[in-house]
Amino acid sequence: MKIAVLPGDGIGTEIVAEAIRVLETLDLKFEMESALVGGAAYEAHGHPLPEATLKLAKEADAVLFGAVGDWKYDKLERSLRPEQAILGLRKNLGLFANFRPAICYEQLVGASSLKPELISGLDILIIRELTGDIYFGQPRGRRTAVDGHFPGAEEAFDTMRYSRPEVERIAHVAFQAARKRSKRVTSVDKANVLETFQFWKDIVTEVGKEYPDVELDHMYVDNAAMQLVKAPKKFDVVVTGNMFGDILSDEAAMLTGSIGMLPSASLNASNQGLYEPSHGSAPDIAGKGVANPLATILSAAMMLRFSLNQPEAADRIESAVQSVLAQGLRTADIWSAGTTKVGTREMGDAVVAAI
Amino acid sequence: MKIAVLPGDGIGTEIVAEAIRVLETLDLKFEMESALVGGAAYEAHGHPLPEATLKLAKEADAVLFGAVGDWKYDKLERSLRPEQAILGLRKNLGLFANFRPAICYEQLVGASSLKPELISGLDILIIRELTGDIYFGQPRGRRTAVDGHFPGAEEAFDTMRYSRPEVERIAHVAFQAARKRSKRVTSVDKANVLETFQFWKDIVTEVGKEYPDVELDHMYVDNAAMQLVKAPKKFDVVVTGNMFGDILSDEAAMLTGSIGMLPSASLNASNQGLYEPSHGSAPDIAGKGVANPLATILSAAMMLRFSLNQPEAADRIESAVQSVLAQGLRTADIWSAGTTKVGTREMGDAVVAAI
Ligand SMILES: CC(C)[C@H](C(=O)O)[C@@H](O)C(=O)O
Ligand SMILES: CC(C)[C@H](C(=O)O)[C@@H](O)C(=O)O
Repeated sequence: MKIAVLPGDGIGTEIVAEAIRVLETLDLKFEMESALVGGAAYEAHGHPLPEATLKLAKEADAVLFGAVGDWKYDKLERSLRPEQAILGLRKNLGLFANFRPAICYEQLVGASSLKPELISGLDILIIRELTGDIYFGQPRGRRTAVDGHFPGAEEAFDTMRYSRPEVERIAHVAFQAARKRSKRVTSVDKANVLETFQFWKDIVTEVGKEYPDVELDHMYVDNAAMQLVKAPKKFDVVVTGNMFGDILSDEAAMLTGSIGMLPSASLNASNQGLYEPSHGSAPDIAGKGVANPLATILSAAMMLRFSLNQPEAADRIESAVQSVLAQGLRTADIWSAGTTKVGTREMGDAVVAAI
Repeated sequence: MKIAVLPGDGIGTEIVAEAIRVLETLDLKFEMESALVGGAAYEAHGHPLPEATLKLAKEADAVLFGAVGDWKYDKLERSLRPEQAILGLRKNLGLFANFRPAICYEQLVGASSLKPELISGLDILIIRELTGDIYFGQPRGRRTAVDGHFPGAEEAFDTMRYSRPEVERIAHVAFQAARKRSKRVTSVDKANVLETFQFWKDIVTEVGKEYPDVELDHMYVDNAAMQLVKAPKKFDVVVTGNMFGDILSDEAAMLTGSIGMLPSASLNASNQGLYEPSHGSAPDIAGKGVANPLATILSAAMMLRFSLNQPEAADRIESAVQSVLAQGLRTADIWSAGTTKVGTREMGDAVVAAI
């Protein structure tokens, strides 16, 4: 079991270090190798995703990823900015299926912006297509407009696109995931406006016929953004495109109040995967030893389950996390009166001890 | 002052009727003419936006619009579905500037999903570009993919685009609106991924230099979807493109808990405008006399202010609405224990009486 460890920038190093300590506590043999990515790689090698890092990721069974980005790279040209490393890894490893659970941890209900009765017990799985859509569609660029409202003016453009097999495979992922849960899928589109998403809706409907035991409904993205606020618990598995998934998965994550706790997985067709916390690199608190390592530790659990075929080990980590929460340990981001504030390292220690 | 009245489908007829009664109470001379639009127009004339309706709208100073849509039209081909009427009106009248206030009415704080302290006093103005972006960009359609992940496969595609003058004019609208408020603009983009929105961000920044008294910041759309949940009151004027604006304005409207109260305005370069409630056609309660007419009545007030140059009359309507709320009158959607439940007509009566 070969793991490429890419801590990245900001709090990435600190939180990934704890996840590794947790992995090392298990009685399993891993081969782990680290490499620079994001701003750290740019500083050292002039590129956010150096060849060697990409090669390491490709050859591994799984990538454990911290976070990338810092305001200080805002002025760099786009192709050199830290986020390009994420996009490059997704594209080059073919990581088309992004799993973004939005779970409200019972102990953290109070941290949500929402009223407790609306959010308590929330457990949504957002499945976001991750290698298609307007993120990667060609052509894109700047040019002189030949039509539209201002022919002759300078314009910029991008191409949204989905092909049939791309939609089919992500739909299968969603229906299969739903079979292991409450057997309901909501496909989010904008079929009333976009050709791409009328096509999406048609294909998801077709694929759905192969899963007669799973209930499928369709929702426009603007309505989905509203229903997540109004009645989030009505959702179970949500499947959508790359752009809408970017927005809705972040909205849902923030609704839970548990964003420091939420892992994510991005898988390709051979279950090779990249695992990273849903939150960002938080440069403002980097190096202070106060970041919450639990989302990264839980990402390592997802890695064990999805890419390394070690479901028991994954369970052990998840139970250990539940137990440290039950002990009342909290990093600053999830701390509330009556609980015990701990740092990144202490939180890692506690999970290791609980295992 | 010529007003084209387009009630549309579902509750549209009922709520527009009350807005008209309110307008007729003012000591002003209006020429009002009604026409069918949406599903109602499709039933009668085979098209959701008949030529005569479009002509009427074009010749008027303002359009008072109810709502369109019903599930029964879901199976129609896209070009005949009710929503196409809205898109057609926006495009043909050049209504590029959509004003979507997200206000939390003090009496309705409890109706929000959010905790009262997060939402009480909220007053955001979302300015959504409404005639560009991926909504109208050509080319779009279906074809055989020549590149991408599955060359040779069937694919669907759309084009996102913005030209310089399109971004400039909506940016000016936003900065000018901010000058009348708290002098802060947040421009929402996805410049880290999209060429179109790097261009957007560059141009908004340039235009911002002409408004040194207005503070400008930039936020990625996924982050904006999160910050609206986490700390909505940090926003004042938000400006964004058509697609992101669709999602964020609905998310923000639902956050307020006051969605039955929220008007909207869509203006062109000569201040001709279309005014409609932010909510939909609610076919489930149509014809029952229980719909909330206040968003439509407040849309009529926006019409008086923006297109008909009657700011005092607009103020009178808005004060009247405040006063019926203060009297404790509520339609079913905003009713809570201790307040008086009224129907559509009674609510209209109360506003008329208060004027
Ligand atoms: C950093 C950025 C390119 C990325 C995205 O938009 O996909 C991020 O927001 C995410 O969701 O992982
Ligand atoms: C009905 C639909 C085409 C429309 C849109 O997407 O613009 C609606 O959602 C809106 O926001 O007015």
